[in-house]
Amino acid sequence: MSFSPLVEQLMESLRVLPGVGPKSAQRMAMHLLERDREGGRRLTSSLAEALECVGYCSRCRTLTEETTCTLCCSPRRDPSVLCVVESPADMLAFEEAGGFQGLYFVLHGHLSPLDGIGPEDIGLDQLEARLEEGGVEEIVLATNPTAEGEATAHYIATQLADREIRLSRLAYGMPMGGELEYVDGGTLSRAFTGRQPFQSD
Amino acid sequence: MSFSPLVEQLMESLRVLPGVGPKSAQRMAMHLLERDREGGRRLTSSLAEALECVGYCSRCRTLTEETTCTLCCSPRRDPSVLCVVESPADMLAFEEAGGFQGLYFVLHGHLSPLDGIGPEDIGLDQLEARLEEGGVEEIVLATNPTAEGEATAHYIATQLADREIRLSRLAYGMPMGGELEYVDGGTLSRAFTGRQPFQSD
Repeated sequence: MSFSPLVEQLMESLRVLPGVGPKSAQRMAMHLLERDREGGRRLTSSLAEALECVGYCSRCRTLTEETTCTLCCSPRRDPSVLCVVESPADMLAFEEAGGFQGLYFVLHGHLSPLDGIGPEDIGLDQLEARLEEGGVEEIVLATNPTAEGEATAHYIATQLADREIRLSRLAYGMPMGGELEYVDGGTLSRAFTGRQPFQSD
Repeated sequence: MSFSPLVEQLMESLRVLPGVGPKSAQRMAMHLLERDREGGRRLTSSLAEALECVGYCSRCRTLTEETTCTLCCSPRRDPSVLCVVESPADMLAFEEAGGFQGLYFVLHGHLSPLDGIGPEDIGLDQLEARLEEGGVEEIVLATNPTAEGEATAHYIATQLADREIRLSRLAYGMPMGGELEYVDGGTLSRAFTGRQPFQSD
C-alpha cells in the first residue's frame, strides 16, 4: 500500500530538492496538503515565475530576471576589479561581508572534465570577451579552496597570463574565531607559511 | 544586497516547507535555478495538480484524488474494525507494518482547544455519522501517545461510551529492538505495569 498516485507523484517531485530524502518528502507533501495549501499555491506560482523569468545577468552571469543585474548597473561600483566566484551565493556572501566595491563574474560551477564541464560551460569565453572591452585591472580568483576550485583558479590564471591584468587569490589561513586545536593540518601549515608581520592596532 | 526579487520570492515561498530555514531555502532555490530547472518544472506541475485534485476520502478522510480511496473500496478489508489515526502517514505506517485488516478513519490532527481545533475540525461528526450506519464493532484509538493524542483518544472514548462498540487503545511498552537502559521512565513503568505472562514460542 502507498499513498494515492498524485500524492506519490508529489513526494517523488519534492525529492529534486537538495537534502530531501523519502521521509522529508513525505513530511513536506503531508504538510502542504493537510495544513498549508495556501503556502503550496504560493510556492507553485513563485517557482513557475522564477523558472520562467530568471536567467543570467548579461554582464556577471548572476541569477536575475533583468537583462543586467542591479549591481552591474550601479555607478557606485568600481569596474576595474572583478571578483570571480563559483556561485551567486558566494557573491552574496561577499556582499554581506562588505568591503568589496568592485564587480563580480559568476562561473556557476567549476571545471570538471570528468563530468564534461569545460571552460565554456563556466562562461570563460564570456569572461575573455569582457576583458577584451578593457577597463579591468585586477581579477580576484575567489573560487572555493577545494581541489576543483583550485584547479579552476589555476586554469583561469593560465589563460589570462598574457594580459596586463593583476591576478590575485583569496588569502588562506586561520578562520576568524576558530580554535587552533581544531583547525586542519593543511590550513594550519598554510597559515604558518603565510604569516604576517605583527601589527598592533 | 540580496538576490533579485523573483529569486528572493522563491526562497521565501520555499520556507513554507517544514524544516526549511533561510539557508536551506537559498540552497534549494539555487539548486533549482542553476542545476535542475527540469526537476523544478516537474515539481511545479505535480504540486499544482496535487493541490487541485487531492482531497479527503469520503469514508476515511485520508488524502486521495478519488471520491473514496482504494482501501475503503476494497472488498477484502473487514469493515467491522475501525482504526482511528491522526494522519495519513500513520495509516501508511500501519499498512506497512501489516497485519491489520480493518478500515481506517483519519482525524488530520488532534483536539487542541487553544488553537481552536474542536471535534468538528477533526471530523468527529463524520465519524459519528459513519457509526450510525452500523456494522462497526470495534474502534482502535490509535492516536499518538502524546498529551494531545491521549486527550483526543479520551474525548472520542467519552463520546462513544453509550454505543455498543468495543473501544481499544494501542498497547504501551518497550519498543522492539530498544535497549532498556535508554527507554524513558514513563514508558518503562507502563511496560512494567502492563507486563504479560511469559510465553515460550
